[in-house]
Amino acid sequence: MFSRYLRVAPPCDPRDFKFKSHQRICRRHILTAATIAQPRRDLKAFFSPRSVALVGASEKSAWSHGVAAKFRAYGYAGKVFAVNRGGVDAHGFPGFKSCKDIPEPVDFAYLFVPAEATLEALTDAADAGIKHVNILTSGFAETGESGALLQQQLLDLANARGITLQGPNSLGFANIAARLVATSIPTRLPLIDGTIGLVSQSGAVVAEISKVMHQQGVGLSLVAATGNEAQIALTDVMDYLVDDPGTRVITVFSESIRDPQAFRDVALRALAARKPIVILKVGKSEISAQVAQAHTGSLVGDDRVFDAVCTQYGIVRVDSIEELVATSDLLSRVPPLKKSGVGVVSISGGGCGMFADRAAECGVSITPFSDATRAALKQVLPDFASDLNPLDITGAVFRAPQLWETTLPVVARDENVGLVVVLNQLPGTPDELRGLRENVLAMGRGLALCETPGVVVSMTAQPMTETLREVATEAGLSGVCAGIPLTVRAIAGHVQWSECLARFEAGERRARPASETQAATGQRPRSEREVLEFLRDQRVPVIPAHVARSAQEAVSFARSAGGKVAMKVLSADIAHKTEVGGVKLGVIGDDAVAQAYTDIDTAVRKNCPNAKIDGVIVSPMRSGGIELFVGTARDPHWGPVIAVGLGGVWVEVLADTAVRALPVTPGDVKDMLGSLRAAKILQGFRGTPAADLDTLAQTIARIGDAALALGPQLASLEINPLLVSGDKVEALDGLCVWEDASQ
Amino acid sequence: MFSRYLRVAPPCDPRDFKFKSHQRICRRHILTAATIAQPRRDLKAFFSPRSVALVGASEKSAWSHGVAAKFRAYGYAGKVFAVNRGGVDAHGFPGFKSCKDIPEPVDFAYLFVPAEATLEALTDAADAGIKHVNILTSGFAETGESGALLQQQLLDLANARGITLQGPNSLGFANIAARLVATSIPTRLPLIDGTIGLVSQSGAVVAEISKVMHQQGVGLSLVAATGNEAQIALTDVMDYLVDDPGTRVITVFSESIRDPQAFRDVALRALAARKPIVILKVGKSEISAQVAQAHTGSLVGDDRVFDAVCTQYGIVRVDSIEELVATSDLLSRVPPLKKSGVGVVSISGGGCGMFADRAAECGVSITPFSDATRAALKQVLPDFASDLNPLDITGAVFRAPQLWETTLPVVARDENVGLVVVLNQLPGTPDELRGLRENVLAMGRGLALCETPGVVVSMTAQPMTETLREVATEAGLSGVCAGIPLTVRAIAGHVQWSECLARFEAGERRARPASETQAATGQRPRSEREVLEFLRDQRVPVIPAHVARSAQEAVSFARSAGGKVAMKVLSADIAHKTEVGGVKLGVIGDDAVAQAYTDIDTAVRKNCPNAKIDGVIVSPMRSGGIELFVGTARDPHWGPVIAVGLGGVWVEVLADTAVRALPVTPGDVKDMLGSLRAAKILQGFRGTPAADLDTLAQTIARIGDAALALGPQLASLEINPLLVSGDKVEALDGLCVWEDASQ
Repeated sequence: MFSRYLRVAPPCDPRDFKFKSHQRICRRHILTAATIAQPRRDLKAFFSPRSVALVGASEKSAWSHGVAAKFRAYGYAGKVFAVNRGGVDAHGFPGFKSCKDIPEPVDFAYLFVPAEATLEALTDAADAGIKHVNILTSGFAETGESGALLQQQLLDLANARGITLQGPNSLGFANIAARLVATSIPTRLPLIDGTIGLVSQSGAVVAEISKVMHQQGVGLSLVAATGNEAQIALTDVMDYLVDDPGTRVITVFSESIRDPQAFRDVALRALAARKPIVILKVGKSEISAQVAQAHTGSLVGDDRVFDAVCTQYGIVRVDSIEELVATSDLLSRVPPLKKSGVGVVSISGGGCGMFADRAAECGVSITPFSDATRAALKQVLPDFASDLNPLDITGAVFRAPQLWETTLPVVARDENVGLVVVLNQLPGTPDELRGLRENVLAMGRGLALCETPGVVVSMTAQPMTETLREVATEAGLSGVCAGIPLTVRAIAGHVQWSECLARFEAGERRARPASETQAATGQRPRSEREVLEFLRDQRVPVIPAHVARSAQEAVSFARSAGGKVAMKVLSADIAHKTEVGGVKLGVIGDDAVAQAYTDIDTAVRKNCPNAKIDGVIVSPMRSGGIELFVGTARDPHWGPVIAVGLGGVWVEVLADTAVRALPVTPGDVKDMLGSLRAAKILQGFRGTPAADLDTLAQTIARIGDAALALGPQLASLEINPLLVSGDKVEALDGLCVWEDASQ
Repeated sequence: MFSRYLRVAPPCDPRDFKFKSHQRICRRHILTAATIAQPRRDLKAFFSPRSVALVGASEKSAWSHGVAAKFRAYGYAGKVFAVNRGGVDAHGFPGFKSCKDIPEPVDFAYLFVPAEATLEALTDAADAGIKHVNILTSGFAETGESGALLQQQLLDLANARGITLQGPNSLGFANIAARLVATSIPTRLPLIDGTIGLVSQSGAVVAEISKVMHQQGVGLSLVAATGNEAQIALTDVMDYLVDDPGTRVITVFSESIRDPQAFRDVALRALAARKPIVILKVGKSEISAQVAQAHTGSLVGDDRVFDAVCTQYGIVRVDSIEELVATSDLLSRVPPLKKSGVGVVSISGGGCGMFADRAAECGVSITPFSDATRAALKQVLPDFASDLNPLDITGAVFRAPQLWETTLPVVARDENVGLVVVLNQLPGTPDELRGLRENVLAMGRGLALCETPGVVVSMTAQPMTETLREVATEAGLSGVCAGIPLTVRAIAGHVQWSECLARFEAGERRARPASETQAATGQRPRSEREVLEFLRDQRVPVIPAHVARSAQEAVSFARSAGGKVAMKVLSADIAHKTEVGGVKLGVIGDDAVAQAYTDIDTAVRKNCPNAKIDGVIVSPMRSGGIELFVGTARDPHWGPVIAVGLGGVWVEVLADTAVRALPVTPGDVKDMLGSLRAAKILQGFRGTPAADLDTLAQTIARIGDAALALGPQLASLEINPLLVSGDKVEALDGLCVWEDASQ
């Protein structure tokens, strides 16, 4: 079994890795695990058919030949039958007119009859008692309305007859580990067994991904193309892979996530199982979202929200097929990182520079070595070598390959290093091997001495060749290389996943949140005052407000507030208070307050003679501090979300906001605040004290919970501004907008 | 000859391309071309040695075997002699004790004797009349001070004896087109002839780059590794490549640019020759800059300034070896683009989505098709296909490959499309070819019908294989593929270069600027007032200011200014005017102005009894408008630079500034302003009118020229703020800082 990351056996042995992680989860999280949702569908039997009927098989059709060839190519371990109108043998498989005629039990029907004959064929399979069906035929929902109708009939039939259905327009699946397949996915031969489970909505793309994997020497446990997803969806296959003991990484290509809740559920299950999910999802750009919508006909949602969900649920999102493969491979080889720092060792100064540049761009931390590390390196390196990280141990290794053995363990012991990267040219041809052989072997010996996980990275992406495979085996390493740019991004993904996993295992987001409907309080605050009072009940600090019913009461409230006050008429009948003279700001002193009360009362009575006046609200005027904008909204696909930004001009001009799906944890909010371009302001600015991030994060998380508690009819809850000054956080204004304004 | 981009013969024929471009340059720019600098060094003879002496050749050394093997591998066309202490034959080459003993004229000595014997060997070569030498031996400047001393001796000797010297620590060069080489650069065989000239400071990296090129089927004209650059530098080789008729693209790997002016000169020469420069330069991150400095010992300069130089001089900067190869290849295949829009055609909706996402991220414009294009597409596409760009012509092409021929020319004719991209799976193996053959041939026929340049892009990066090479030849295409992410970045680089070239050919930056010393006026403004007056003389609008020598004069000036005024004491002896009561702001009305004059005079006389007071400056107070920060600085490596940002909090918190090397054109300034995150503010904001970008850009360019006119002792000139409101631009404050404050 081969892969692009060269791995030291002892620390990363797959069995160790799995054993440790499972044990740990069972011990620590046995109670909370119960709150994570169960899979919606059990696909264990579906992905293990011991016999398959090829419905539509015919010697005359090139298409049919292609399908049949796949069963031989994959070395299918079960029995195959041909079903066609003539009942004749095809491709060496015995022929029957109907599935019902097959004299043995059939686990799986693989249908590729013309679209118009599909319903009849599915009925025949159902009548034969076949419970698992894949429809390869296209021409259904992807072609428009009439195709969608036909697809609905297939689904209704499958549901009525208890059939588990993949497709239509699906290339099937290959359970590579078990050689149990029902597929026409073209995969390069020979098959490489591996621990990556791959699922894709697109058949063309899954073929291309598996081609890249083969080229790079990366193996698969299972590969599936879900097609139109009439019944089995991406998330169902992901759920299967979480439970599949042969799969360590879940690799996904998606055009649209049909069931956002199922997606979040499977993400939490994957975290509990310590299996990373790596996803390539198109639709980042507006154009691409249009294409996806045209292509699949399903809703897409705001891509920023999908990004947010990935961040919150520990899903590693990548940008290309090449990155999908490199990242999945790294994650399948290297256990969760205990520290986020990377120690890099190379014999090329240029390589060190390129790696450091990519690392800085991707947020991978190459921390300076500790004094102890540098002292230890000085003892083993040539005089003219530097002791920086990345470490250039220079061309001296060509004369003294043992430098790998003396330097790598030193780097691995550094207090900040969670991953050792050996960066080097790797031999692809026998000619290249001659000059590099001793070095590769010494790298292997050096990495074997490390107690921290280590990977070997080639300077550039290169395919797996026989030469490299052989020397890697001899060196006790496995793999070839993705090159610097892809590997650095893969490491960034690994760090992100490891950190999310650590937070999850420390208790964050363990419990599946209640649905909005369950959480709803039934309340419907409308006026600014009602909104602020509701927030206060939800433990969000709001600016104090007193309703004065006389000038004297106003004076007394203003005195207790101290300093300047804001005064606003309280009346459910008045929408625009300022316009009718119902607002006075910055009022100070007993006389001025009393006068303001009288002025407001007189003006409003004159301008709105019919309004019922309930008094005048007196609040302290705030100055200083940092103003934030906090607002919730409803994504048409992903549901309620929350946005945070710095108030005023920042939000207006820079659109400098961070978004997350609700509910959010205080940890999520800290991530959001840290991701703002103007985050520096929160560290204190022009005399304003630094914001207390813990208090602020907790408050914003509560605002999110408050929005959920207002139920599914809430369109948005907006706090603008939320004022923060040191550990004092206060909502100054609040607004609710309701989906159905009449309710 | 092969490459990764499949190219249509008629519009992009290399000969056409070169012929047209040369003709055009000669016709249009014959006068201004003379202002561009000439190469510093003529390397034509250096890169064409008809005979080479291998000094240090020995059968006993594995190292020597490696060197000698390269001459055979490259199929060296000249004579080779072995020189060693014993004067014995080596590797089949006749042996001599001294270069002087060789009975024929020798063009080139390739030295790889031990470091301590190098000076003697160089002397021997010089005595033999050899004029071109490459020193492979390492252990010179790269190892520290004593090595640097030895290197200086080599250089002195070479200069004294008229020797052109590459190295030390240089792997030499291979003139692949002419098979005239003197090298130990390991290049994979068989050699692929091409039009890319590759030069690198690092030998390890150049080997890796050429490995990737070979793997992807990309050919080279020349490859050189300049090593320690005692004499021949990167820019010298680049200069050679500008004039080399066999080279179309200049591809560079650099750790540091030793001569910034030579770099800018060769960049302009390359623009005049219509040859793109593609560069991978390490040192983006702080860590990487440290590594480069440790590695090469040479100054690095601010990476942002290098980025700016690339933007200004049309140099395409890339981030990885993979991108260097893909971008160079695309630029060698596709002539300057006449429009920046890209039309994409694919049979994979997923592929369209991935391409569109990458394009949006890299700023590649995929503009919607025009109505005419969409109408024409409707006539040839299946009903269920969309007419969006990227265009998914669906799997229907498997039944009807002629769809390529009907759709591609339609897309190519679209009014916004400057480049047609065919995105598809490409066959790497005979098995894959079976399913794709008809499609590849039809793509070739379709692209041949297009009048706009077209490239074929594979979904993922894949190496060149025999299968792909053969079918591409049959289809009338050449090449394999770099995959979506690299190709999109390559297209972005091509668009950037094409636009810079168009501006250059329209007359921008045609003349080489005068040096700072030549430009210097000899003036040394120091006080705010002197600086503003100097700027006014340089045609930069500045706020009016009058020196009042009495309260009455102050009143009269204030009246003529109208509205509020600012009043400041004028005295060369007072640095901090506010602290001594020398400033009054927002003064309005005759009495107040007179009083302010008296107050300033009294306070300053009291606080600074010895200061000579020259009067009080009266200026109008400005309000409204947008405040910009404009400042020049001196990069230790690249020389004078200019930074522009929005004033105050934007610069302070966001560090939202743009930087360019001086001099700047108004076009440069517009790029700078457009690149600010807060650029939107310049379009008008909260009642402030939109800035007139032409006037603003011209003013800022003049500020840059003013800084240059102050000569090389100016450390910085700062205008803060430069106020802009509509077409009114005015410097409100100015400050000069001088390198040598005593002058």
